[in-house]
Amino acid sequence: MPKHKSFTLKELAKVTDSEVVGDENLYVDNLSTIENSTKSSITFLSNSKYASSLKSSVACAVIVKKDFKVDKNFNYLKTDDPYLAYAKLSSLFDYDNKINIPYIDKSAVISDKSSIDKNVYIGPNVFIGPNCEIGPNVIIHANCSIVKNVKIDTDTMIQHGAVLGSDGFGFAPTDDGYIKIKQLGGLTIGKNVEIGANCTIDRGAIDDTQIHDGVILDNLVHIAHNVILGKNSAIAASCAIAGSAKIGKNFQMGGLSGVLGHLEICENVIVGAQTLVTKSITKPGNYVGIMPIQEHDNWAKSSVYIKKLSQ
Amino acid sequence: MPKHKSFTLKELAKVTDSEVVGDENLYVDNLSTIENSTKSSITFLSNSKYASSLKSSVACAVIVKKDFKVDKNFNYLKTDDPYLAYAKLSSLFDYDNKINIPYIDKSAVISDKSSIDKNVYIGPNVFIGPNCEIGPNVIIHANCSIVKNVKIDTDTMIQHGAVLGSDGFGFAPTDDGYIKIKQLGGLTIGKNVEIGANCTIDRGAIDDTQIHDGVILDNLVHIAHNVILGKNSAIAASCAIAGSAKIGKNFQMGGLSGVLGHLEICENVIVGAQTLVTKSITKPGNYVGIMPIQEHDNWAKSSVYIKKLSQ
Amino acid sequence: MPKHKSFTLKELAKVTDSEVVGDENLYVDNLSTIENSTKSSITFLSNSKYASSLKSSVACAVIVKKDFKVDKNFNYLKTDDPYLAYAKLSSLFDYDNKINIPYIDKSAVISDKSSIDKNVYIGPNVFIGPNCEIGPNVIIHANCSIVKNVKIDTDTMIQHGAVLGSDGFGFAPTDDGYIKIKQLGGLTIGKNVEIGANCTIDRGAIDDTQIHDGVILDNLVHIAHNVILGKNSAIAASCAIAGSAKIGKNFQMGGLSGVLGHLEICENVIVGAQTLVTKSITKPGNYVGIMPIQEHDNWAKSSVYIKKLSQ
Repeated sequence: MPKHKSFTLKELAKVTDSEVVGDENLYVDNLSTIENSTKSSITFLSNSKYASSLKSSVACAVIVKKDFKVDKNFNYLKTDDPYLAYAKLSSLFDYDNKINIPYIDKSAVISDKSSIDKNVYIGPNVFIGPNCEIGPNVIIHANCSIVKNVKIDTDTMIQHGAVLGSDGFGFAPTDDGYIKIKQLGGLTIGKNVEIGANCTIDRGAIDDTQIHDGVILDNLVHIAHNVILGKNSAIAASCAIAGSAKIGKNFQMGGLSGVLGHLEICENVIVGAQTLVTKSITKPGNYVGIMPIQEHDNWAKSSVYIKKLSQ
Repeated sequence: MPKHKSFTLKELAKVTDSEVVGDENLYVDNLSTIENSTKSSITFLSNSKYASSLKSSVACAVIVKKDFKVDKNFNYLKTDDPYLAYAKLSSLFDYDNKINIPYIDKSAVISDKSSIDKNVYIGPNVFIGPNCEIGPNVIIHANCSIVKNVKIDTDTMIQHGAVLGSDGFGFAPTDDGYIKIKQLGGLTIGKNVEIGANCTIDRGAIDDTQIHDGVILDNLVHIAHNVILGKNSAIAASCAIAGSAKIGKNFQMGGLSGVLGHLEICENVIVGAQTLVTKSITKPGNYVGIMPIQEHDNWAKSSVYIKKLSQ
Repeated sequence: MPKHKSFTLKELAKVTDSEVVGDENLYVDNLSTIENSTKSSITFLSNSKYASSLKSSVACAVIVKKDFKVDKNFNYLKTDDPYLAYAKLSSLFDYDNKINIPYIDKSAVISDKSSIDKNVYIGPNVFIGPNCEIGPNVIIHANCSIVKNVKIDTDTMIQHGAVLGSDGFGFAPTDDGYIKIKQLGGLTIGKNVEIGANCTIDRGAIDDTQIHDGVILDNLVHIAHNVILGKNSAIAASCAIAGSAKIGKNFQMGGLSGVLGHLEICENVIVGAQTLVTKSITKPGNYVGIMPIQEHDNWAKSSVYIKKLSQ
């Protein structure tokens, strides 16, 4: 077990742009949840509603909102956004086994027709095919495939097992079966993007698939060819977006959801989990399409009734 | 950037079995979308309904239907099926960085108990376990696992990260937990099949899982043990087909959909996106089971009502 | 083709704790389905209801329930649980190309900050990052990534392409986009667990993600950070469980289903396929939320009606 680094509350207040209430020279050496703290922990309370949960904590310090009613039980960091302060501290306490840049594992197979910035991390068993451009501070974790015609801009991270720039699902039907349409386009991924583990993003049929700056994808997400996914969009796990969908910035989608092909979705749309977007959306807001979960017997009755509606 | 190859319209007409209207000696050097064309592009109009979109295009040539009303703005290739003509041209213009056969990457790990045709492409970090047979012109892209007892017939392509022939999900429940059922069967994949990136197809428990000729799977599709998937079926991304389902030819399924285990589905069935097939289907046709997407407040009302139906 | 091993019915009765009715010295050399048997096969009938299917079988022996009415057509093994007897025989007949322990493929990349038991199987192109502990008899198949802070207990099997211990999907929103929350926690996986191909399980944000003893996951399942998944739970393919869900033992979930974040689910809950758990469940039982599949025209009518409910 590595020795923990220690920081004073004063130091942490500076990093998180917050105010110390209590002993600013107190040392903390770990960032903890409220439940699993030690006497040298700092923890955080994102929502003052759950203040009573603090009673059980042995942490010495807590990050709270500016208007939180403090007492003598803890030392405090007060800030506008405790969750953001926690995010900043997570980076400070992430000193152990960090990814080092530059590094290219010797098992990676990289096409000599591609251009790789000198400040990148490329993990074991990564494959990078031809006509790719990998920008500064890009991290590509182990077992990823960057297939062909893929540009990845600065500070973007690709988690393990992701496949970027794969052939889009393009086939022309004939009486004798499908004829494959060769996928001549590319995939461009912006700055500060994160792609989750085992995701797949296809390159375009002719024009490029585009993932704009600041997009975050959870694991096992599929993005089809020629999708345009707007800036700072966030897609939860196991979603699928079909071909040529054009999606505005700040899109959010819960897990297991989908968007049909060729739709347009305006900015600032939020779609719930396990919901299928079946037509274009022109009005910002929250959209849901979930069949409610019920005990099996009740569901059977609802289900029969729904089918009767069509008769 | 590589220099583009050029072709005359006469040459392209021959490849696509179409008729030139205009200058048959005109050279084009790229295949483009209507929107992003150059003066030396050929583009295509699959549906005459969208003819007005051509106004904005600077392409010199367009593939159109035989009955399209031509004008002097473009040169034309007239054909019965412009989308099929586009598919054929995509192959002609795919001259850059093509996969070369034969090739076996030196990082691939291949069991000496398996039989590999001499004309194959096996990419970096591919694993091929024992008792497999890989046929002529098969392409297995990087980071795939071909686990055990897998036969792949000619001209089939396996995209990156796919796992074929993995253990089926077979367990016998006991009071003390699950006992694993060893999976003794195999997986046979037909000719001219395409398996998408990060798909998983399990081998059979005793008999074989079967993927018939001409099947196309998009990315992140799961096919369980002992499924039989009929000829020329097409499965969109993120679908799952449960164990022992027997599915006739020409099956089509939209993304995020599923088929329960042990069902039988006749030929020529089309299932919409995010739909669960819960019983066998004996009649060809279109089937759907999607909860409609609504604005959140409206959905909440519908949802309450659906639950009331069961009371 | 390898030569088959043979066993007498007496030997098989001993392994499966069953009683021979017929010739106990009869040799069988393969375990078959009812349909695809040979004259030297043993097959099994889990459910006496399907006894008529035996008529077509040429197998010489059948595993049946104790109360099954035998005749002269076969030799029988009688037992309380024919399916469990089949599971045990599957292991006996799995003598071909078994995984050998200990084995570490030379292409595996393993951090010297991790601790690997000497009796493990680690397949080709596996990556194991820092601060991991891999216990005795663990099998990690080809192309897996074991990212960071992952403990895997004895007798657990990780199928091909799985990613364990990846970064959780944790980001703090700001006006300028998302700030990544570094994931400081770990992932603990119990004894006798099986993780399917191309699954992803994230490590915890601060505390650990926990997969308890005896859990079985099918392929392409996503488990988010800080999920606790109880003992002997079984999750079918393509499911997703969101962050911090706490799930009791013996949970079962059909394919393509999901659990929202921060929910609690008590012991002995069964959730159907393509169902979303949207609130905590405190009562054991069967739960479903599937929109019924219909012919397209009928579904369109139901769908219109459901939307009217909210007006």
